[in-house]
Amino acid sequence: MPLYIKSVENLINEFRKLPGIGPKSARRIVFYLLNQPKKEIKQFSDALIEMKGKARFCKICFNLSEEEVCSICKDQSRERKKICVLESASDVAVIEATGEYRGLYHILGGLLSPIEDRGPNEIRIPDLVRRAKEGDIEEVIIALNPTVEGESTATFIKKVLKDTAIRVTRLASGLPVGGDLEYADELTLGRAISNRGEF
Amino acid sequence: MPLYIKSVENLINEFRKLPGIGPKSARRIVFYLLNQPKKEIKQFSDALIEMKGKARFCKICFNLSEEEVCSICKDQSRERKKICVLESASDVAVIEATGEYRGLYHILGGLLSPIEDRGPNEIRIPDLVRRAKEGDIEEVIIALNPTVEGESTATFIKKVLKDTAIRVTRLASGLPVGGDLEYADELTLGRAISNRGEF
Repeated sequence: MPLYIKSVENLINEFRKLPGIGPKSARRIVFYLLNQPKKEIKQFSDALIEMKGKARFCKICFNLSEEEVCSICKDQSRERKKICVLESASDVAVIEATGEYRGLYHILGGLLSPIEDRGPNEIRIPDLVRRAKEGDIEEVIIALNPTVEGESTATFIKKVLKDTAIRVTRLASGLPVGGDLEYADELTLGRAISNRGEF
Repeated sequence: MPLYIKSVENLINEFRKLPGIGPKSARRIVFYLLNQPKKEIKQFSDALIEMKGKARFCKICFNLSEEEVCSICKDQSRERKKICVLESASDVAVIEATGEYRGLYHILGGLLSPIEDRGPNEIRIPDLVRRAKEGDIEEVIIALNPTVEGESTATFIKKVLKDTAIRVTRLASGLPVGGDLEYADELTLGRAISNRGEF
């Protein structure tokens, strides 16, 4: 005998597939939904279907879009000679929220990983190189996570663009604003020292 | 301009309504779903609708059920003179998983709370009293959380059943198995001392 009735078990299992949701959270969510009006559940279910029906990826930069080309790629007021390279389309909002960047984007959709068998062709690096060379681009800003995979992907991109006039930069590493020297790890502190600047 | 396209924003908002899911988890889940095949999303969406269509509450004990009377209330092999009182239908699985209880259940659907204006009539205490008196019940086992609201609900139930021959018991309080004296709070330790027993 399953713990709950089948329809409830099924839904718990669907929630358990989601990232960051374990068996207890899934159960808690489903029992919450059991007490919601039918209308709310219908709305949730419709939002899932609609998202999957409408969301696609921009054919230029692979950002989320409802049309073939996303609103950022279409926006002629942006600085069209800069491309910011991101791992995932979800990172676009993070960069946009800073208000510090007004250029274009390129979403890799992953990082180089020998372990997971992901090479440059799996993560849209050829598209980036083509865009950079054909698009009269002046700067490629690499904004990948400062992890081993992020760093090696950054190094790879720098290498393939070496013979061009394009400036390849990456986000500064250093102390978080409001951070504390004592709590910084050695690597971050080391970077902060070697990247020190006049003020 | 919203951070993402509308259909994605909508779905993020739907996930944010769920208990324990904040803005970052919601975003992470939606971007995960964006990369899932359409079939998976359809299955998720269908599971939501089906759950809401099929799940209802047993008219006797208010446990989850797909029929008018739940499988536990129908099961003639269970000890039908014992009722275990629970706050929520989600607690049934927790008790069943122990394998220590083979009686019936009664789900209150909440606890007494003067602050939230929940009195005995709001939490199916009259149904419990009627069941206990009419059903030839010998024992009512109160398995509510050992919180202020849980304790006062337990005390209230004990009081309303005082004039009957029904034994009203509650779960033992004490040290968790594998727990450590040093980490037990004074209240729990005090209960463990006053409930001490031969072994």
